[in-house]
Amino acid sequence: MNFKTIIENVRKSGILVHNITNYVTVNDCANILLAIGAQPIMSDDILEVEEITSICGALNINIGTLNQNTIESMLIAGKKSNQLGHITCLDPVGVGASELRNKTVNRLLSEISFDLIGGNISEIKALYDDSKSTSGVDANENDLINSDNLEGAIHIAKEVSKRYDCIVVITGAIDIVCKIDKCALIYNGNKQMSRITGTGCMSRALISAFLASNKNDLFEAAVTSTALMSICGETSYDIVKKLELGNSSHRNILIDEIQNLTFEEFEKRIKYEIR
Amino acid sequence: MNFKTIIENVRKSGILVHNITNYVTVNDCANILLAIGAQPIMSDDILEVEEITSICGALNINIGTLNQNTIESMLIAGKKSNQLGHITCLDPVGVGASELRNKTVNRLLSEISFDLIGGNISEIKALYDDSKSTSGVDANENDLINSDNLEGAIHIAKEVSKRYDCIVVITGAIDIVCKIDKCALIYNGNKQMSRITGTGCMSRALISAFLASNKNDLFEAAVTSTALMSICGETSYDIVKKLELGNSSHRNILIDEIQNLTFEEFEKRIKYEIR
Amino acid sequence: MNFKTIIENVRKSGILVHNITNYVTVNDCANILLAIGAQPIMSDDILEVEEITSICGALNINIGTLNQNTIESMLIAGKKSNQLGHITCLDPVGVGASELRNKTVNRLLSEISFDLIGGNISEIKALYDDSKSTSGVDANENDLINSDNLEGAIHIAKEVSKRYDCIVVITGAIDIVCKIDKCALIYNGNKQMSRITGTGCMSRALISAFLASNKNDLFEAAVTSTALMSICGETSYDIVKKLELGNSSHRNILIDEIQNLTFEEFEKRIKYEIR
Repeated sequence: MNFKTIIENVRKSGILVHNITNYVTVNDCANILLAIGAQPIMSDDILEVEEITSICGALNINIGTLNQNTIESMLIAGKKSNQLGHITCLDPVGVGASELRNKTVNRLLSEISFDLIGGNISEIKALYDDSKSTSGVDANENDLINSDNLEGAIHIAKEVSKRYDCIVVITGAIDIVCKIDKCALIYNGNKQMSRITGTGCMSRALISAFLASNKNDLFEAAVTSTALMSICGETSYDIVKKLELGNSSHRNILIDEIQNLTFEEFEKRIKYEIR
Repeated sequence: MNFKTIIENVRKSGILVHNITNYVTVNDCANILLAIGAQPIMSDDILEVEEITSICGALNINIGTLNQNTIESMLIAGKKSNQLGHITCLDPVGVGASELRNKTVNRLLSEISFDLIGGNISEIKALYDDSKSTSGVDANENDLINSDNLEGAIHIAKEVSKRYDCIVVITGAIDIVCKIDKCALIYNGNKQMSRITGTGCMSRALISAFLASNKNDLFEAAVTSTALMSICGETSYDIVKKLELGNSSHRNILIDEIQNLTFEEFEKRIKYEIR
Repeated sequence: MNFKTIIENVRKSGILVHNITNYVTVNDCANILLAIGAQPIMSDDILEVEEITSICGALNINIGTLNQNTIESMLIAGKKSNQLGHITCLDPVGVGASELRNKTVNRLLSEISFDLIGGNISEIKALYDDSKSTSGVDANENDLINSDNLEGAIHIAKEVSKRYDCIVVITGAIDIVCKIDKCALIYNGNKQMSRITGTGCMSRALISAFLASNKNDLFEAAVTSTALMSICGETSYDIVKKLELGNSSHRNILIDEIQNLTFEEFEKRIKYEIR
């Protein structure tokens, strides 16, 4: 893959990303977009989301703290984004944890065409079989991807990818990026990333910018973005350990690394395979 | 007190805490829960709060940026949490500063049974005598606890504890934890913590996890959690001073310390008495 | 200008600032107010904003994530603030990017009298000529202030200042502070500040506290606050570079510097002229 060009494309893009997202991790999503060279805009009132989406290159919908007002805004913005041919991404945070989340995700998936759906294994599993395995917004302990259940997770990702005709990303100890029958596995990242709130949300904000800046090869852009996030999780944790810091500083330094990581370091660290 | 067991119980708990909270300090509340080994979930739409509370071990209600929609959600979630026997905590942020806050807190206290109410002295005083001493969301300068007015503050905490049959925590220069006639005073912490937004909100998120992980002794859990927060305020400030940083970095390093503090350091630093 | 007295006035003020602001950068706005010695309160429900404004010394309205509920709250709070003679500031975030933002800003400007309006060049330009040059919440690349277009930007600032009879601040590579025909240019700051989300929002929160603590000379207070923000952008970036950090840490250290910067350093660094 031409990782270097893909990363350079987003770093110089200044691409504007419209986020309809939760109020928990929204600041980190804004800063990670600025770190990679994109521009964030957050807007969720039904009276303006169409216009805001129109001036952007990508729309990132995240249902983390959905409410009845913002759900309608997500639907309207998503349709507009489709109509304009903009990149449209979904993070179905906590789907499986409530009927409201399940119904909302069903409506979003039936009325909007997404370029990418990204979540943890419990969330993507909930899309696959309507299972209620989700126990909150973080992956269920029993679901965590390891070498024992990797094949099952890949199967789920591929099936969801086919059903919704889009790229599916499962982030976890091993990251999975699938497009129909094509699949990349990324072995970077570390366990400490799960102690930071919003690494998933940040990943989806970042990947929206990568896709919008690399529209000629969305799959490669998705793999590169996912790998960059996990690699920066590693390099930032090296700094955190050295300075004897913890999860809150890890969050900041992870975003810093998205801005600073050299391509040489990326290339040295990336561990992936295509299946 | 068996501080060690209490801390270990929460560190290994992975307990899920439902927060209906303000949008100012919500990210720090999520990260402090992850730091201690708990899991945060934030959700405030009336259509899902019952379900979300049901999958959690604790509910933490914080009225910092209350609005007409979320007030109803707080009431519904609180009743459900009571019905399920889950830990239910209240942070009456800024009560005394507006009629809306006063009325809301009255409704919450009359319709929901809380395990713990925590706030600064001005807020707890407002519960005690409906005084309007609150001048914002931070403690009124004239109310700050010192050796001169400590007895009065303890009296207030005990009275509020009896009236609502729950633990009452007053955080400040001296922290007070009361359960009916039992009272712990904690002499840790430092003045710089009042220059960080949300130390109170974070304290209440943290204590919700401590209580839910130590249901056999809520008073000891509340004392331990309060002491841990104040001790981490000290150890983090030692680092802030050494690195010549300020309040925003102090916030991050305080959360880091919640993750990293050894029990040895906790034991060495804690200064408390039981009255 | 008596920079020293102005800064000391706010540092010892403990002034309470009511913020009706966006959920993206709200935490940083709270921490920057605490850093300078002021006290933040965030509140946006229509049922309490009048009361909250009444106990504060300043009101800071920021439309970054406006919605139909908060717009009404902004109008009510603004009128109350005027009635009480409190400092009232506006940050018209992203005006020009949607009809909702344009209409809201028009309503705010026709129904409320502001002491100060602050924004980036694209936003102030949108107020000046109803241009739709705004491309998001950050300044349009073509609009960035440099020596070539400085005179045009000063003209715009003066005209907007006259039209709304208030101080106008344009933040950018060169900061402009105008009051009718008086104009200060500040040559501090650095490009990296545009990689941090919310430097504009933080600037407006800070300036609200400066004005409310220096009511006898609002223009000098506005110049001092703007210079302090840009100088802290510089000194914090010196630390960021030395530690090889990036934009997210820069945000924290910038706020730290607002707390820590000595007047000697301020005096050594400030580069400004009055026109």
